[in-house]
Amino acid sequence: MAEFSIDRFVDRYARRAAGMTASEVRALFAVASRPEVVSLAGGMPYVQAIPAAEVAAVAHEVLSEMSDVALQYGGGQGAAGLRERLAMLMAEEGVIADPEDVVVTTGAQQALDLIGKIFVDPGDLIAVEAPAYVGALTAFGAYEPRYLPIELDADGMVVEQLEQALVRGERPKFVYTVPNFSNPAGVTMSYPRRQQLVALCREASIPIIEDNPYGLLRFEGDPEPCLRTLDPENVIYLGTVSKTFSPGVRVGWALAEPSVVQRLILAKEAADLCGSSLNMLLTERWFSDETRWRGTLTGLVDTYRSRRNTMLAALDEYMPDGATWTSPHGGFYVWVTLPTWLDAKALLAAAVERRVAYVPGTAFYPDGRGTNQLRLAFCFPTEDRIREGVALLGALLGEEEQLYRSLQG
Amino acid sequence: MAEFSIDRFVDRYARRAAGMTASEVRALFAVASRPEVVSLAGGMPYVQAIPAAEVAAVAHEVLSEMSDVALQYGGGQGAAGLRERLAMLMAEEGVIADPEDVVVTTGAQQALDLIGKIFVDPGDLIAVEAPAYVGALTAFGAYEPRYLPIELDADGMVVEQLEQALVRGERPKFVYTVPNFSNPAGVTMSYPRRQQLVALCREASIPIIEDNPYGLLRFEGDPEPCLRTLDPENVIYLGTVSKTFSPGVRVGWALAEPSVVQRLILAKEAADLCGSSLNMLLTERWFSDETRWRGTLTGLVDTYRSRRNTMLAALDEYMPDGATWTSPHGGFYVWVTLPTWLDAKALLAAAVERRVAYVPGTAFYPDGRGTNQLRLAFCFPTEDRIREGVALLGALLGEEEQLYRSLQG
Repeated sequence: MAEFSIDRFVDRYARRAAGMTASEVRALFAVASRPEVVSLAGGMPYVQAIPAAEVAAVAHEVLSEMSDVALQYGGGQGAAGLRERLAMLMAEEGVIADPEDVVVTTGAQQALDLIGKIFVDPGDLIAVEAPAYVGALTAFGAYEPRYLPIELDADGMVVEQLEQALVRGERPKFVYTVPNFSNPAGVTMSYPRRQQLVALCREASIPIIEDNPYGLLRFEGDPEPCLRTLDPENVIYLGTVSKTFSPGVRVGWALAEPSVVQRLILAKEAADLCGSSLNMLLTERWFSDETRWRGTLTGLVDTYRSRRNTMLAALDEYMPDGATWTSPHGGFYVWVTLPTWLDAKALLAAAVERRVAYVPGTAFYPDGRGTNQLRLAFCFPTEDRIREGVALLGALLGEEEQLYRSLQG
Repeated sequence: MAEFSIDRFVDRYARRAAGMTASEVRALFAVASRPEVVSLAGGMPYVQAIPAAEVAAVAHEVLSEMSDVALQYGGGQGAAGLRERLAMLMAEEGVIADPEDVVVTTGAQQALDLIGKIFVDPGDLIAVEAPAYVGALTAFGAYEPRYLPIELDADGMVVEQLEQALVRGERPKFVYTVPNFSNPAGVTMSYPRRQQLVALCREASIPIIEDNPYGLLRFEGDPEPCLRTLDPENVIYLGTVSKTFSPGVRVGWALAEPSVVQRLILAKEAADLCGSSLNMLLTERWFSDETRWRGTLTGLVDTYRSRRNTMLAALDEYMPDGATWTSPHGGFYVWVTLPTWLDAKALLAAAVERRVAYVPGTAFYPDGRGTNQLRLAFCFPTEDRIREGVALLGALLGEEEQLYRSLQG
């Protein structure tokens, strides 16, 4: 793209697109993708651990045996055989699902977009975690909502805050949560909080959107029941194979009530007609061999666990006094809170110059909070690189601290 | 899905989703998908003509040689190498494109959705052909526009009608057209009309969305220049590999000005993060072997030409007096106009009972027109099936005509 161009369409865009301009952070990430920079920013799965030869064999099988289906359009709901496999995957986490109630989407991200499309009118209120998955904020953002941010603590969403908001008379269209190993905070909702949230939302007739990309990436401890299990009628559940298999096939899904499913299918067809038959059949077959998919997943979890351990140890070693961080039991992310006088967004340019990148906390709030917070991802870099990146970041923060103290004193 | 369920979310949907319920026509198509029914309804490409073994070999190559990329997330704009190939495909039709100005989408359908998202506020006017591609009406429909339908004749859009609307003071956000072998009408915009449309829209600063899925499926005659060629600044061009290769990979694209491209990328990322890296690399490699892709395309065009010939001959033989139809020089569709007293939507159930299906004309108008029209697709069924289907339809229409005359006389 040319960097400067007269925008002849400038007065023709929709209101929702007026703010659609590339951010400064985006520009920095272009720099951060240089190989010499240790990126602790992106949440890319470690796909190098997927046995590519086996994927190639599966793709070859699908195209040899059923190319007439694999190369053709499919229905808007997604391939029936795949939906059965996805029901099986949900059963791994205790969710009982009828494949007829599943809509296959282009990653779970598309499910977020379609949910925004069918539920959100401009000005509608949506309850989100603070901090929340940035992709959900951008997906919903296209439908011009207002946000009700509910804080997180070590036990996940502080449900009391939602309750107080309801008492105040706020009526969110839905509550959006990533209860397991949340992105970006890395925290997991406790069982009491889950019970509390489900009861509150049922009582108030407010649907819950439960987004669970990381549930099967558990390093330790026992899983809590899914919200969908606690209330199958009032919870719309989202899943993806991007973390258990590959994001390159773009297969996610929504599990919902038939009335919602019908609308999601129509919204999906309006958005892109149907998913990729080839990718759906490939994914279905990948998950049809239990030894294969479990073996791959176990390998991924072991890798992520080691990397998490390395990152936590490096944070202990290199972070200056006053910084705190979460200790995730699974998933991809550690959430760091710096002393309040540090601005993680303002520091990003200096960090990238020193060859380390992260995502500033403000990206995860709809309201400008999080200036002294940042997200670190341990999923993709090797342990050496993680240690190197955290050391570089720690050195920068230490110098900033010294500078601050010298100015104070 | 359960057929009857209490919709506990009924008062929570967005305004745009209120009308999202499965139509009667949709229910009929479920019946029409039974193998004994000759479907002249769906626009499924004849993917049986794609050499599946070669696709399998290409998929195997991609996964063997570059699984780290194929199985990973990609950027929102789409793989750079694929965008170069797509620029090459556009050059086949005379469109000069910088790969930096291309955004890869999930089929061209997603480009329609993203264009609706960045341009359309509720109540905005959009100029569409009458009849128009039904998928464009549903994609744009999610953004709650009003429509300005511009009629088609044998030379494509009757641009004078658009001109008159502008004189009346109507200000559409954009004009949407399928200038080559339109879906559903099968007509092609003449060169004078193209010049007229492009000059009018440039003068009025109204962008044109040129959707060109069928341009390379020409059976006879010389191509007209693309609208994008006539005005590269004011035309957003959409393409797809669904008709030249396979719809199963869901690869389409938009070519636009940098300012529009930037917004399309952000809207794409909000909608589904990125396309399937695997499918993008597979498609890139498919089109990197000129003998392979040209050979496949030539085979498809030859098949479609023969099927078009068969359908036109069968229509001549079996249609009752008073029915007329278009003679497409390419693409997938013939558009049939019946005597005004026949209702193609009301007749569909009887047609399906007699084992033939079509799409009623009303689906292609935003305003209830087209009751006596229908779309027939010759792309997928064999020539025998096409003849059989048209004969079944002709017999039904003939009997309806006799019944009408006996009631009249």
